[in-house]
Amino acid sequence: MFRVTTSGVSHGPGYMAIIDGCPPGIPLSVEDLLPDLARRKPGQSKITTQRKEADLPEIWSGLFEGQTDGTSIGILFRNEDQRSADYSDIKEKYRPGHADFTFDMKYGFRDYRGGGRSSARETICRVAAGAIARKILACQGIRVLGYVTQVGSVVYQPADPSQITLEQVEASPVRCPDPEKARAMIELIEEVRKERDSIGGICELVATGVPAGLGEPVFDKLKADLAKGLLSLPAVLAFEYGAGFQAASMRGSQCNDHFIPDPVSPSGIGTKTNRHGGMLGGISSGQPILCRVAIKPTSSLPQSQPTVTKQGEATEIVTRGRHDPCLLPRFVSMGEAMVCLVLADHWLRWKAQCGG
Amino acid sequence: MFRVTTSGVSHGPGYMAIIDGCPPGIPLSVEDLLPDLARRKPGQSKITTQRKEADLPEIWSGLFEGQTDGTSIGILFRNEDQRSADYSDIKEKYRPGHADFTFDMKYGFRDYRGGGRSSARETICRVAAGAIARKILACQGIRVLGYVTQVGSVVYQPADPSQITLEQVEASPVRCPDPEKARAMIELIEEVRKERDSIGGICELVATGVPAGLGEPVFDKLKADLAKGLLSLPAVLAFEYGAGFQAASMRGSQCNDHFIPDPVSPSGIGTKTNRHGGMLGGISSGQPILCRVAIKPTSSLPQSQPTVTKQGEATEIVTRGRHDPCLLPRFVSMGEAMVCLVLADHWLRWKAQCGG
Amino acid sequence: MFRVTTSGVSHGPGYMAIIDGCPPGIPLSVEDLLPDLARRKPGQSKITTQRKEADLPEIWSGLFEGQTDGTSIGILFRNEDQRSADYSDIKEKYRPGHADFTFDMKYGFRDYRGGGRSSARETICRVAAGAIARKILACQGIRVLGYVTQVGSVVYQPADPSQITLEQVEASPVRCPDPEKARAMIELIEEVRKERDSIGGICELVATGVPAGLGEPVFDKLKADLAKGLLSLPAVLAFEYGAGFQAASMRGSQCNDHFIPDPVSPSGIGTKTNRHGGMLGGISSGQPILCRVAIKPTSSLPQSQPTVTKQGEATEIVTRGRHDPCLLPRFVSMGEAMVCLVLADHWLRWKAQCGG
Amino acid sequence: MFRVTTSGVSHGPGYMAIIDGCPPGIPLSVEDLLPDLARRKPGQSKITTQRKEADLPEIWSGLFEGQTDGTSIGILFRNEDQRSADYSDIKEKYRPGHADFTFDMKYGFRDYRGGGRSSARETICRVAAGAIARKILACQGIRVLGYVTQVGSVVYQPADPSQITLEQVEASPVRCPDPEKARAMIELIEEVRKERDSIGGICELVATGVPAGLGEPVFDKLKADLAKGLLSLPAVLAFEYGAGFQAASMRGSQCNDHFIPDPVSPSGIGTKTNRHGGMLGGISSGQPILCRVAIKPTSSLPQSQPTVTKQGEATEIVTRGRHDPCLLPRFVSMGEAMVCLVLADHWLRWKAQCGG
Repeated sequence: MFRVTTSGVSHGPGYMAIIDGCPPGIPLSVEDLLPDLARRKPGQSKITTQRKEADLPEIWSGLFEGQTDGTSIGILFRNEDQRSADYSDIKEKYRPGHADFTFDMKYGFRDYRGGGRSSARETICRVAAGAIARKILACQGIRVLGYVTQVGSVVYQPADPSQITLEQVEASPVRCPDPEKARAMIELIEEVRKERDSIGGICELVATGVPAGLGEPVFDKLKADLAKGLLSLPAVLAFEYGAGFQAASMRGSQCNDHFIPDPVSPSGIGTKTNRHGGMLGGISSGQPILCRVAIKPTSSLPQSQPTVTKQGEATEIVTRGRHDPCLLPRFVSMGEAMVCLVLADHWLRWKAQCGG
Repeated sequence: MFRVTTSGVSHGPGYMAIIDGCPPGIPLSVEDLLPDLARRKPGQSKITTQRKEADLPEIWSGLFEGQTDGTSIGILFRNEDQRSADYSDIKEKYRPGHADFTFDMKYGFRDYRGGGRSSARETICRVAAGAIARKILACQGIRVLGYVTQVGSVVYQPADPSQITLEQVEASPVRCPDPEKARAMIELIEEVRKERDSIGGICELVATGVPAGLGEPVFDKLKADLAKGLLSLPAVLAFEYGAGFQAASMRGSQCNDHFIPDPVSPSGIGTKTNRHGGMLGGISSGQPILCRVAIKPTSSLPQSQPTVTKQGEATEIVTRGRHDPCLLPRFVSMGEAMVCLVLADHWLRWKAQCGG
Repeated sequence: MFRVTTSGVSHGPGYMAIIDGCPPGIPLSVEDLLPDLARRKPGQSKITTQRKEADLPEIWSGLFEGQTDGTSIGILFRNEDQRSADYSDIKEKYRPGHADFTFDMKYGFRDYRGGGRSSARETICRVAAGAIARKILACQGIRVLGYVTQVGSVVYQPADPSQITLEQVEASPVRCPDPEKARAMIELIEEVRKERDSIGGICELVATGVPAGLGEPVFDKLKADLAKGLLSLPAVLAFEYGAGFQAASMRGSQCNDHFIPDPVSPSGIGTKTNRHGGMLGGISSGQPILCRVAIKPTSSLPQSQPTVTKQGEATEIVTRGRHDPCLLPRFVSMGEAMVCLVLADHWLRWKAQCGG
Repeated sequence: MFRVTTSGVSHGPGYMAIIDGCPPGIPLSVEDLLPDLARRKPGQSKITTQRKEADLPEIWSGLFEGQTDGTSIGILFRNEDQRSADYSDIKEKYRPGHADFTFDMKYGFRDYRGGGRSSARETICRVAAGAIARKILACQGIRVLGYVTQVGSVVYQPADPSQITLEQVEASPVRCPDPEKARAMIELIEEVRKERDSIGGICELVATGVPAGLGEPVFDKLKADLAKGLLSLPAVLAFEYGAGFQAASMRGSQCNDHFIPDPVSPSGIGTKTNRHGGMLGGISSGQPILCRVAIKPTSSLPQSQPTVTKQGEATEIVTRGRHDPCLLPRFVSMGEAMVCLVLADHWLRWKAQCGG
């Protein structure tokens, strides 16, 4: 019901996003999109790429007198700061870990300038759309927050994910709410950058205030759509919710969350623990939705890597250009956006079928 | 393009599956569906549930003189061996780890007999549809195989996933291709059963022969659709492909797979390693597609667990009935089915847009 | 949001329909489906085919204790009274006006028994699904009714379509609410039957009580989805709503419906006339939705017609078997069903986006 | 498979169209879009509106070195020549025949400037997308052409629709290929304009070179998707193909098209006549696809019409601004675009399921 369509490439004139299905009457302005876009933006701190993009959205339709009017919302971003010269080398060689090779295999050729359609700059559209979804969810008391729980060997284990605040997350450029861990993560990122390398990590996402009942019972389970949404982002290699991979080592008596009377919950019923990550049978339970995704280290490296040419001859490549040594700090806003989009869609689906 | 629609509940007359978009001229008979259905079937070994179901599919349409005729394929399964008495207790109490509570929250009430629509018996439809998808893929030289790599603390690490054979997998009822690990897994399952408990695990899935170029570049990435397909199965809590969560601890220089000349590959190009799990930019690379999912321990336990009644009062529940102490052995066929369905769909999509 | 998937062929074991997206809590039983199915049934009067089918639906899932439970509804029909011998001739020859030739061209071969998947018997699934949609609509005060306004040269022009009652329609086997015109239509049908011929006609459909606001503003206009739904039925060659083709000869000053104060309407606003057939900009206006479809004369004729063999050699064919000399009387229930399905879908979509 | 998403309003900054699913390697440039856009353009002749729009498309993505690259195509149009003052009156009054009232009913309020999202200017996106679809079809030898067969009382009956050429159509500003009829139509349009009125008409569309086999057998029949596509255009009140509404008066022996040996056809089989409009069972037969749509007279009239205010009080309205006295001349390119889009989609679907 809540649909996002995007187009654009990193070295063309810009990007377009079209959002269909947004309810009318939601107060919305360009300013509402800016905070999330700023969190996604390159050049926001010393541990992200130094590339600069203004990233100013223009809303071309779907708004009237400060509110969504129910019709298609069109958003446009203009590209700036293109340094095409940076990418000339990649025309003939396949960058390891990139989509250069698979695009050539799929389509026969590719736009090699800055990754073309495979560029992560496309996520700017999703972050903008996610900010609109976030406003719809906020009207229902639903809040979505992400933060970094791992960068390489530095691991942070939150005591209570649903208590973490946006302020705690934003207090550090690495977006880990624990100040000490954040410092260690930043140090590690600085270190790998100096070594002309990159580093992976984990982002945890929590949605609170989600009413019980969202998600379809079979194919379109909420967990399935969250997994798809998050895996549709570049560099995401893994998804888990609740106990996740830990459940493989657990017994049923350890893993099951016991239902308990819960006067705070609208249904009067809660669970003692949340190893089910807020979803049972693929349907939200009213407990916080909790999931984690693993992000691989940036593939573009300013060091020489073996590869082949388009003709299949062995060669080496050094990816020039300005790249994030660690994708995690900027990923947080992208991950949140996808969770917001999936929840907004399921909220509207719930309204259609089960709403009053 | 390849679409499966299912209906049915575990304690009604049976299940229906409708498959649309299947190419015409694929040789198909009921016999083609039986092997995968037999691997899914309850009662197939002492470590699975002792419930008996004939699980004989009836193909009502879409076949003509031994071949698919391009029109909608209708498959029907009749339920047998229903012991409704076994489930009478769950009418008033919420089983921990089950969808009872979330169905009530979503729909206002539920079919409490045997889980109703949330019963894992629904996967019988997907396994049948997956067997048809498997035949389409086989015509292209694509093979999909799953096996168990973890049950509780017993972990098996395959040396080369793409070399494992169906015979090796089927040699043991637990479907771990390593005989020694398989024995240890079976022992553990026996042990937890005796303790009236259950145990989780991990299933790895490998697809070989997948041509480079399947998957869409943005939302419908192949990795995203595999994640959705697998997470749409009951009890799946996690998905990863290639390096997966390990990538969070890796550097780019460790994680990137270098392209190499590869005379065996149709493109003449391969990768030295396969930490990308056969997908780059969400598009298949021609390397084996490799992914893993975590399955939680069976929620239904023949021991007393705290819970609440529908009215929210604390109580206890013992789930009677015959349940698998470990879902992994039977999960393998379900996981393979979802991978087959996703690959068949993307193969048809590739043909539509990029095919000759 | 309200989705119907069907499978089955006229000479296989039967048909299946799966309905997804139905709201929970709608009282429903097999009995609710029978009236519409009886109106579609062959053999119901002397002017329809004398073929007999029990047409008894079995609801396999989606119902619990007399109400829809929100999950997938599975309905099954068993075929009876198959006389395959009747159809043996059509294996080698293409019946004029039938899909035999186009199926062969599309799929390479076809199930030639009784039309296979192209048989109009498939509409049994839609009529059953439509009866469920009708119940959803009835809860909102929406009523859908069809009737025959033309058979060959006999034309009936209703004074006020929204005042016609089901009783008036069902008073005659030809389903024309005007007794005199009905008699003339029946006479004409008898006449063409005796001449081993068939005759076409027009069915008008009216939906009253439809609230203003259903339909999307661009691609999924309500008029577009009604046209698609009705043209997806066999033998329908044309669709118009409101003034329809008459508008081609009109001036704007004649065609525009003036808005007027209307105390009866929930909005206080109505239109003086209804040449817009209840839809403006593709969105319902609150006025009765009024459309008409043209049905071609039955293609199967018990007289010799020139045609070709599969090898392209000129020959002749006499279509044996029992066929309706006029499709209109039985079409009414099919047309109503499609209108109900489209309206139920748009009602749910409205609830999702614009509902309270 | 071939998908178009649009956004934009007539009095905002402009329009966006995103086209997904286009095969790679189709030569394409802005110049390819201009001819169809010029035929749609306002101000092209004295019988169309005198409003001026540059209507210059900018292709932002999906092209690389002069060819489609298989990824999402983004097209942008900037609005010019907005005279908002022209529309100030319609804020408080509902224009007869317009979507003002239904938008208010659906969304609670509306962008009243120039029709907002309901403006027919949105079709600029479809015409651009249709021009791309036309290029895909041209590679398969498929040609789509529309022309005006009726304006008010002036009716043109083509002898052989498949022989009409683009040059014949474009020879007259009214786009009727018969010079005499064209003159009469132009005279009539001039006359109604002088009388401050408008006039309706009929556009016929013919697609030649369409291979047999396009279209799905049940819901997504080619006739159904053509009907939906064409009815999704503004002001279209009716659709028919082949014999259309005439079939209601015909007997089967008159209406059936006899199959004949046809050495010109790839299958060696043709039909003697084409009352089936190139589709049997909803699937293309290899004969020319022939359909007609009725367009209502322009609703906006420069004469006073009775209506109501938003508060439901009776008033009058004169629609100022520059409007076409007859929509037909400009409609031709819109109708062709929708036919191209539907055929391109079904061509890709055919390739997916039935292609080599």
